[in-house]
Amino acid sequence: MPSTAVLARESAPSHKVLDGRALAQRIRAEVAADVAALTASGWPVRLVSISAGDTEAARLYVRNQSRAAASVGMDFEARDYPGDIGSEELTGIIQGLNTDPRVTGIIIQRPTPAHLPERRLQRSVHPLKDVEGMHPANIGNIVYNDLKMGPCTAVAAVEMLRETRMSLKGLEVTVIGHSAIVGKPIAFLLMAEGATVTVCHHMTRNLAMHSRSADAVFVAVGKPGLVIGDMLKPGAALIDIGINQVDGPDGPRVVGDADFDGCHEVAGWITPVPGGVGPVTVAMLLRNAVTAAKLQRDHYAATFGETAPG
Amino acid sequence: MPSTAVLARESAPSHKVLDGRALAQRIRAEVAADVAALTASGWPVRLVSISAGDTEAARLYVRNQSRAAASVGMDFEARDYPGDIGSEELTGIIQGLNTDPRVTGIIIQRPTPAHLPERRLQRSVHPLKDVEGMHPANIGNIVYNDLKMGPCTAVAAVEMLRETRMSLKGLEVTVIGHSAIVGKPIAFLLMAEGATVTVCHHMTRNLAMHSRSADAVFVAVGKPGLVIGDMLKPGAALIDIGINQVDGPDGPRVVGDADFDGCHEVAGWITPVPGGVGPVTVAMLLRNAVTAAKLQRDHYAATFGETAPG
Repeated sequence: MPSTAVLARESAPSHKVLDGRALAQRIRAEVAADVAALTASGWPVRLVSISAGDTEAARLYVRNQSRAAASVGMDFEARDYPGDIGSEELTGIIQGLNTDPRVTGIIIQRPTPAHLPERRLQRSVHPLKDVEGMHPANIGNIVYNDLKMGPCTAVAAVEMLRETRMSLKGLEVTVIGHSAIVGKPIAFLLMAEGATVTVCHHMTRNLAMHSRSADAVFVAVGKPGLVIGDMLKPGAALIDIGINQVDGPDGPRVVGDADFDGCHEVAGWITPVPGGVGPVTVAMLLRNAVTAAKLQRDHYAATFGETAPG
Repeated sequence: MPSTAVLARESAPSHKVLDGRALAQRIRAEVAADVAALTASGWPVRLVSISAGDTEAARLYVRNQSRAAASVGMDFEARDYPGDIGSEELTGIIQGLNTDPRVTGIIIQRPTPAHLPERRLQRSVHPLKDVEGMHPANIGNIVYNDLKMGPCTAVAAVEMLRETRMSLKGLEVTVIGHSAIVGKPIAFLLMAEGATVTVCHHMTRNLAMHSRSADAVFVAVGKPGLVIGDMLKPGAALIDIGINQVDGPDGPRVVGDADFDGCHEVAGWITPVPGGVGPVTVAMLLRNAVTAAKLQRDHYAATFGETAPG
């Protein structure tokens, strides 16, 4: 009875639907206060974005990030390099930014040209300026339950689950997708909170069995319609991290990895796409930038401060 | 019928029991050949072990490691510092070893005295000399499916599972224990191989449900008798990482986290304690030392070799 479901959702917006825009707004307000205090004490926050080659997708991200940074009082410099820039040259530029005290954080826009391996560039960013939380040392810190700057999307997805106010201790969670910067970090962020976590992926034999036994399901694989209502336990939370562009009757539109209407009927909570994890991800980038500024300030104080040894 | 089980095992040693000593022997032979080749090309392998304060447990480990190193042609220097050595002083000593070209790898013996946080010492070891595979950057590399030097126990446990010759693609695995250097690295080492992994721990609500649905169970929590036969699916592999000293009728003896006899009846494969994961762990330390030597050689070559830029 699709018409009834649509009617129900239209007549009374469901409390089930977790509002990423509202959460992002709250986080940004906190970040803005932090930025103001940091700036007042001599630590203004400034991000440098590095793009190589002209890609439309990257331009959209850069514009979003730039606006978001401005809205919380951060400086944002977008640098565009030609697509044929040499690897040595770009690494040298990043090293220069690492040692520039006016730069708080460095963002490497994806996709990078084929001759510039994304991971190599990401590694050349100093861990204390790694506001995207992708340096292996920052990933490793999360494994040690020491979250400094985490990968923005993973941290955002976990923040969305917290919005349900469920206790994470002993929660049965299934994560679908095992990428190094989304699925796996979600898994160990949740383990640190006491959840029992199963990570599934394209080689998993019985995905529905795992998703159906979970109190919360995260999906991040980039396949529209992968998760359907039948795959959920009634009342479970579904955090949809997919961002897919599909053709609809009214032109292209953006959807997640779940069949929203079908899952909405079964789930206890669900994140919409767009308006779910996405806006929170950008807010996490801003929060990481504040964390970076504080870590750099603390490192400076430990080196030059009165309490330093010697 | 315990007597029957004992009789059966005594009369015909079961092929079920995975032999860690034999596997360790094979790995050591490979390592010895590598060490000989490295030494011949000017890269002898030398480990330095650092103990602070006199603990019997550490002395036993050091003696084992020293013998194992000698057996494959590695130098091994055991350094004992007083239990009240300052944190700054010991960190300085480690930094000196980091920059000493005659030192291939550094081992921090546990437990460390209370005023010397283990993790802080571990972090001060350079990632390329981190033969225990515990530096956050090395842990983070595994998350990126880029195994250089992994935590010895976790890698050893996975090697024991490989001995079953089961395909790891799509294998359902339950890991009991979520420590940063054993349980979690096992989980993402296996995810990299295509396994579907669930990580359980003391907050898990229904441990038996998860262990019983698994094709392979890893346990690393330090609780004798935690895993019993009823918790296994018939034919599953059980990799027991626990090392616990218990009192028996003939004095103290070492057991794992599983009830061996009960699990032996149900499992398809099982690791004994002692003689299972333990010997392989020491072999992994030696293999990591060879990896460290090779990485340091490659780094030297890239810096000084003809193919270097400029």
